[in-house]
Amino acid sequence: MLGKPFTFSLDAVDGRARAGTFHTPHGPILTPVFAPVGTQATVKAVTPRDLTDLGATLILANTYHLYLRPGDELIRDLGGLHKFMHWDGPILTDSGGFQVWSLSSINRIDDDGVTFRSHIDGSSHRLTPERSMGIQQNLGADIIMCFDECADPANYDYLKTALMRTHYWASKCRDVWRNTDEQALFGIVQGGVFEDLRTESCRALTELDFPGYAIGGLSVGESKADMARTLEVIDPLLPANKPRYLMGVGTIQDLVEGVARGVDFFDCVLPTRIARHDAALTNFGQINIINAKHARDDSPLDDACSCYTCQHFSRAYLRHMAKSKEILGATLLSIHNLHMLVQLAQDMRTAIFEHRFEDFASQRLSQLGCKPLKETS
Amino acid sequence: MLGKPFTFSLDAVDGRARAGTFHTPHGPILTPVFAPVGTQATVKAVTPRDLTDLGATLILANTYHLYLRPGDELIRDLGGLHKFMHWDGPILTDSGGFQVWSLSSINRIDDDGVTFRSHIDGSSHRLTPERSMGIQQNLGADIIMCFDECADPANYDYLKTALMRTHYWASKCRDVWRNTDEQALFGIVQGGVFEDLRTESCRALTELDFPGYAIGGLSVGESKADMARTLEVIDPLLPANKPRYLMGVGTIQDLVEGVARGVDFFDCVLPTRIARHDAALTNFGQINIINAKHARDDSPLDDACSCYTCQHFSRAYLRHMAKSKEILGATLLSIHNLHMLVQLAQDMRTAIFEHRFEDFASQRLSQLGCKPLKETS
Repeated sequence: MLGKPFTFSLDAVDGRARAGTFHTPHGPILTPVFAPVGTQATVKAVTPRDLTDLGATLILANTYHLYLRPGDELIRDLGGLHKFMHWDGPILTDSGGFQVWSLSSINRIDDDGVTFRSHIDGSSHRLTPERSMGIQQNLGADIIMCFDECADPANYDYLKTALMRTHYWASKCRDVWRNTDEQALFGIVQGGVFEDLRTESCRALTELDFPGYAIGGLSVGESKADMARTLEVIDPLLPANKPRYLMGVGTIQDLVEGVARGVDFFDCVLPTRIARHDAALTNFGQINIINAKHARDDSPLDDACSCYTCQHFSRAYLRHMAKSKEILGATLLSIHNLHMLVQLAQDMRTAIFEHRFEDFASQRLSQLGCKPLKETS
Repeated sequence: MLGKPFTFSLDAVDGRARAGTFHTPHGPILTPVFAPVGTQATVKAVTPRDLTDLGATLILANTYHLYLRPGDELIRDLGGLHKFMHWDGPILTDSGGFQVWSLSSINRIDDDGVTFRSHIDGSSHRLTPERSMGIQQNLGADIIMCFDECADPANYDYLKTALMRTHYWASKCRDVWRNTDEQALFGIVQGGVFEDLRTESCRALTELDFPGYAIGGLSVGESKADMARTLEVIDPLLPANKPRYLMGVGTIQDLVEGVARGVDFFDCVLPTRIARHDAALTNFGQINIINAKHARDDSPLDDACSCYTCQHFSRAYLRHMAKSKEILGATLLSIHNLHMLVQLAQDMRTAIFEHRFEDFASQRLSQLGCKPLKETS
């Protein structure tokens, strides 16, 4: 399985759906893949060995959070993020852009970067493309992201301006990035749900020739149909021999619809976040374990699930954990929810190899009570 | 290692210190042993597989808590506590007595039992010796405790009355207990720090001939010297061929001093409770990981420790978890703190076999900056 870092091979294709292998210095990533999110250098409530056990291969960490605390230089001095958080598999960091826009209070945006106040202590900071690259180099993830502007998706005119800045910043990031075997830099396609902007973004970024492409600015409030249509616009405009990463997307339905439109990587906080609010993903929809109907239920969350939680703990026990506000409840639900999405990605890979992805997709969607979204193109 | 349930063999003796084997339907307990506490049918923040990995053999669960929520009948109907919480090793339940006295508001104590209000919802409940036995039979632990009165340790006259009630209740518990191969019932020696009361309690309980004896009413505010002296009074009065369990005791110093005075079992919430407040046990004393001096410290909590946490995570990382209020911090510190006490008990066992317990004890105590407590007898 060892390959030259950051080469991507397409192992099988079924319609638009792709099964591939992306090689990194910390091992291969078999796609489609779902990446658990470790915001603060921990996938919340789950130990690294439980992550490995549930089948995770790639995990994500947040540049914005780690830059503010404990600091990227501290992590560099202690040997980098892999050693710091004890994760020997591939890691991806985002650029910090999205959190600057969503969490901090912004003082100034200009063509060189963003000045903002920390959501932790109000201290003033500045992120630029160069600074984001420097921080991500200190963190030392295998896959790093260009610094982009995440603008209001409904405002076409502003989005167009932000898009030009995002492309300008992508070229700056590319200049700072040392194209070594250590880190792969992905460009981020933006442009909301506007076909012309997405087309322009794909053109501008592919000209810069990145080892992979992220798709940003989706799953931010637009309709499922708009997301699907936008992915269909992007699919043929990105090179087939590079991985595509749909940022921040993590429901069963969205993973299936994304793979159906050529996406390879996904990440989302959803499975761990809802776990801390007593909710579990199942193949038949989301359930809240605190519901009284689970009080004496000896069955697992999902009969078909092979995770540690489903193999050993009943709904009744998980409900007792939730009612008692026990930490173990969050841990066991997180393990289950992450496994559901990690396993779904692996099952889609198998279906693609066996050229039955469309059947697989409709079956999984119909279990959830969803119809497959129609192709618009 | 299979032996007839609830037989106790003394494998080695060194001074008063004992190494033994207590056989249970869920496997042998090698003593001295430290039992992690799983109050609500979970050792807080630790999965059962992490408990096994850190070396735990015996765990404790609280009758009072499980009776109130989710209910002992529910646990019985779902196959008992072992299956419910997925712990295949030995389990010990307390009688509910201590929590009735410390957590609930008591309405009435009489010679038949206690009427109290739940600390959860204020509902009214009554516990009697018979009821405590019934609940503990429903829970299905390997080792169960007599229902006792935990009276104000400073009030000699009241303590004497409470002690008579405790002995009366012990005989009632013994009558209800089916002396089967399924559950061992331990009597609880009470009497505060008063030699005559402890002597009377040992006499009354050994007459009832239990498979083991717990020592209650210590570590409730008395001095270390008083605890040591009381254990020295009790030691020769309990039969050598039955295990002795010092309830609620769990510091390094107390474990060493307890084994030096003939104690076999210990339990305490301390290691997991302090973990959730960012504190770690080390062989050189307790540290608070949030202290700034750990910020860039690449070393483990304890160089000599073989636990998962110390093998893979630095003090700097654990401090980051604590500063970020991440659940994983509580989990990793709990694993370490539990391992410290579980391993200490195992190391004492080895030292007893090698007839060097006294040296071992003074070395461990001097690392902590304590002198061994003098024998008073």
